[in-house]
Amino acid sequence: MMRSLVFQPLGRRVPAEPGGTLLDIARKEGIGLSSVCGGVGTCGDCRVRVQGTAVTPLNDTELDVLYPHETNTGLRLACQVEVLAGTEDIVVDIPPESLIVAQRSQVEGVEIKEQLQIGIEIYDLEATPPSIHDLRGDWERLAGSRAAQWQIDAPVLAGLPALARQQHWRVRVVVERERVLAILPPATHPLGFAVDIGTTGLAAYIIDLITGATLAAAGATNPQIAYGEDVMSRLALVLRDPTRGTHLQHTLIQELNRLIGVLCAEASVNAAALVAVCAVGNTAMHHLFWGLPVDHLGLAPYVPAVTSALTAPTRDLGLKLAPGASVYSPPCIAGFVGADHVAMLIASQAEDRDGVVLYLDIGTNTEISLTAHGQHWCCSAASGPAFEGAHIEYGMRAAVGAVDKVTWADEHLRWHTIGNAPPIGLCGSGLIDALAVLRDHDVITPIGAWHRQHPLVQRADNRGWVEIVSAAESANQQAISLNRADIGEIQMAKGAIRAGIKLLCELAGIDETDIDTLVLAGAFGSYIDPISARTIGLIPPLPLDRIQQVGNASGIGAKHLLLNREQRRVAQELISRIVYVELTTHPDFQDRYSQALRLTPDLWD
Amino acid sequence: MMRSLVFQPLGRRVPAEPGGTLLDIARKEGIGLSSVCGGVGTCGDCRVRVQGTAVTPLNDTELDVLYPHETNTGLRLACQVEVLAGTEDIVVDIPPESLIVAQRSQVEGVEIKEQLQIGIEIYDLEATPPSIHDLRGDWERLAGSRAAQWQIDAPVLAGLPALARQQHWRVRVVVERERVLAILPPATHPLGFAVDIGTTGLAAYIIDLITGATLAAAGATNPQIAYGEDVMSRLALVLRDPTRGTHLQHTLIQELNRLIGVLCAEASVNAAALVAVCAVGNTAMHHLFWGLPVDHLGLAPYVPAVTSALTAPTRDLGLKLAPGASVYSPPCIAGFVGADHVAMLIASQAEDRDGVVLYLDIGTNTEISLTAHGQHWCCSAASGPAFEGAHIEYGMRAAVGAVDKVTWADEHLRWHTIGNAPPIGLCGSGLIDALAVLRDHDVITPIGAWHRQHPLVQRADNRGWVEIVSAAESANQQAISLNRADIGEIQMAKGAIRAGIKLLCELAGIDETDIDTLVLAGAFGSYIDPISARTIGLIPPLPLDRIQQVGNASGIGAKHLLLNREQRRVAQELISRIVYVELTTHPDFQDRYSQALRLTPDLWD
Repeated sequence: MMRSLVFQPLGRRVPAEPGGTLLDIARKEGIGLSSVCGGVGTCGDCRVRVQGTAVTPLNDTELDVLYPHETNTGLRLACQVEVLAGTEDIVVDIPPESLIVAQRSQVEGVEIKEQLQIGIEIYDLEATPPSIHDLRGDWERLAGSRAAQWQIDAPVLAGLPALARQQHWRVRVVVERERVLAILPPATHPLGFAVDIGTTGLAAYIIDLITGATLAAAGATNPQIAYGEDVMSRLALVLRDPTRGTHLQHTLIQELNRLIGVLCAEASVNAAALVAVCAVGNTAMHHLFWGLPVDHLGLAPYVPAVTSALTAPTRDLGLKLAPGASVYSPPCIAGFVGADHVAMLIASQAEDRDGVVLYLDIGTNTEISLTAHGQHWCCSAASGPAFEGAHIEYGMRAAVGAVDKVTWADEHLRWHTIGNAPPIGLCGSGLIDALAVLRDHDVITPIGAWHRQHPLVQRADNRGWVEIVSAAESANQQAISLNRADIGEIQMAKGAIRAGIKLLCELAGIDETDIDTLVLAGAFGSYIDPISARTIGLIPPLPLDRIQQVGNASGIGAKHLLLNREQRRVAQELISRIVYVELTTHPDFQDRYSQALRLTPDLWD
Repeated sequence: MMRSLVFQPLGRRVPAEPGGTLLDIARKEGIGLSSVCGGVGTCGDCRVRVQGTAVTPLNDTELDVLYPHETNTGLRLACQVEVLAGTEDIVVDIPPESLIVAQRSQVEGVEIKEQLQIGIEIYDLEATPPSIHDLRGDWERLAGSRAAQWQIDAPVLAGLPALARQQHWRVRVVVERERVLAILPPATHPLGFAVDIGTTGLAAYIIDLITGATLAAAGATNPQIAYGEDVMSRLALVLRDPTRGTHLQHTLIQELNRLIGVLCAEASVNAAALVAVCAVGNTAMHHLFWGLPVDHLGLAPYVPAVTSALTAPTRDLGLKLAPGASVYSPPCIAGFVGADHVAMLIASQAEDRDGVVLYLDIGTNTEISLTAHGQHWCCSAASGPAFEGAHIEYGMRAAVGAVDKVTWADEHLRWHTIGNAPPIGLCGSGLIDALAVLRDHDVITPIGAWHRQHPLVQRADNRGWVEIVSAAESANQQAISLNRADIGEIQMAKGAIRAGIKLLCELAGIDETDIDTLVLAGAFGSYIDPISARTIGLIPPLPLDRIQQVGNASGIGAKHLLLNREQRRVAQELISRIVYVELTTHPDFQDRYSQALRLTPDLWD
């Protein structure tokens, strides 16, 4: 006889087959078990109680996430518990707080209502077909008395007559604050699209709004890169020719539509079920996405057109989703601290964190936020494109063939490339490693000059350099080396960042060493070696266990903001309390910057 | 010394020059004197008191509209009073109820707030320019704390940075229910666009939303006429090729945009100040305007996609107005009783009228509503295109050269044409006259047959006819005549209408002669001779003083619904109470229809 797995209190009985987690099984069966993290074991949302012994025991992830008083009462994380072979039935008891969707309840005979965390409601509507004795409009027939209460736009209504007849007058209606987002075939899960629009790259996710699961994720290059590698070059382009703003927007939207198509195919879902979008990006990308003018972002004093959160129908932007879908962007903070930084702070739970936390998102502009005992400061440091390889003789982006790590062995430099390909240049993390190693072994001085007597330093024509990769080892048989000017570029980049950190700490009345946690966000922050960064004084001299590399936290934040309306309120609250510090006019900036150029961990002695 | 005209209590003093009404002068001076009818003397909104004798005396229009107790206290209609030559100053006292706009009041130092009847608010905002010490976004700078409260869409924001700088950080913001409709230069009056979309013609109006004045009005042909003369032929076109629906919509929108351009030029206003639209039309025109599918409107049982009132941003429809402008259409009643009929009922104040009122809008489909002692019924009669000249041998539309009146003198028929041009055919009003005259003089019998012995009846080849216009008089030297089949078409058309009237009266438990007022709406209803219509039994046998010909009441209703949000509530209320009667399935319809084919005033004896 087949052994069963029963989800209670739903009374849902499914075959219990070994392998696969309880969350996987719940998802497959369409049971709305809450899981904001998508099943990786960090959110703790999918707490359940399991009766039966044929499951995997408590693991470390569960011990990390669950409190002792929870494990004592038998709570487990459904995403961690796997079914083992056996004969005994398994009963999984889902506490109410772990169910995203309240149990379905029949209202007025034909209607099922669900309230999702995101703030949308689902109504399953059913009606008798029209006849000569019942001539109501299609919408009034299905929506009944709610037709007068719900706001529905013509583009959403346009699809109804055909769908209602195809589906024999049973449809699912997705409603947000009395506004109809979509009319879908019965049982269709409404979906969301979260996207982090970086200057260089896009990170996009399709989310099931009922289960909270990420159904597909993909990265792509921001196609605007063809019009300028960094933000300022794109702004300069629009300043020269304002029609280019529209062009940059269209290029981006076109690529997002392509990504949506790819992701929907991968997840085997229909883009017409995408009812919500959360888009984040730096202020310039945000403005270009929304079709807002960027003229004044590119001219002093660099003010945005708007910093408030924006919400609008996606059809305004040309995104190909459900025609009633709405798009949301969290607030921006300033011209150079955008909605992506706010999303990162949301993902990092900045609002709830105790102690002193520094958030660093390194790029051409580096956004720095400091949370100290419930107060928030932030600034933008003009670190420039050196970490992306610009203005560096052999610099390049972090692509295949870039030297991304440099170490020391046997009195020589050792290197590693992305993709283990033959080396073609140096990317940001490799540059930081190289400087750290060269400092550690006294090849360069704290002010960035060569120790001329060091055997690695080569000289000719009044110039000095160090070979990182020899001609014999490189892809094109040309040595890859580092010169004094390259070192200077890195010094200026890291000097601006470190001066910003220092000034925020001074405003908060703390020492840099008081920082309890340093959060390194963004792609670059994930790839750099924190020890090297500490050695050259890019970041304060903190113990390694206080440094967290969190990856694309902006994308994660976008997902949180998509799934949970409460987080949108938190973002609004955070914005109203954060103090933006303009470094360029700060009277102490030049002094701190000059000191911070030095390649040493302790700068302020 | 120049003689003055002073508007009180505003204290506004202007030169008093003879000619022009007080309303004209008030408008020129931007004084918000209420006037819903646009100055034709029907609404009675522009009541004022005049001190001074150098004005025209009370005229018939004023005596009609004002009550004796009002004229006794010196009230006049500003739209009727003209300034005469003289030396004496004139003082015009505007009572508070005649002022649309409350007097301006300063709020928080920089802001003026006005609440219009339409439900929109005006805020005059002012800010200091951005500087390195004040980096707020443009929108937050101007809107202050309201930026978090107001919903503003990106297309509206997009114009702000340039406008704010052009206008030195002073702008006027138009807000409706916390949603920003437009950001305008200071002092700009927000405008509205009302349009009645007929199957054949468009009637469009530009309205000043502060004064309520109609600034420009124009008619145009519905360009969809190229795709089918009547509703059913356009629906048939879309049924054969669904892409044609979009095409018909685009054609209409394009023509509306052209009309908007013409009207704005005429009124010397900027289309960017158009923040509100009210569009009415029959259900098919309404659906085509909104881009809704019409497939099922053209197939039994002829149900609409939606009947509820619709509201949406006009940019969804491609109308070229303020990017945040919203468009409203009142509810439809059924597949063949549309939003235009509801607008007509609103213009006729159906909801407030005592006694028994019958509303008739004659066309290919004739909409009939009956209000009897606070209850409402309505139906649609398939009267067909005979009144537009279709299926009539010498029939034509009401264009130049059409015989529009037929009378009797010296035992012969006399005729009149539109534009006094040489006759080329017979239009609806001429056909009704002809039948009435021929019945009055016993040329045809009550069943529509020829009195063969009458000298006017000519016969050949078993066919009989009467010449309306002789060959010598006609434009192409061919006689214009009426045959038995033509008479039959008119009988069927009027039979359907009269049967509908009769059935509604039966449902209301009244006799047709109990009707206190018969409202003839629409172009055709304005042109027909009510005596002729009564003679052939198209309308019930009512005394002439109970018959009102109200012209394009749908267009007037659209203006009311544009200007006054309360009227939108009234429309909703009316719809919820009106009983729609489907004639085609009514068990008594065939019997009443057969009786109503007879060409005689008293049908039911």
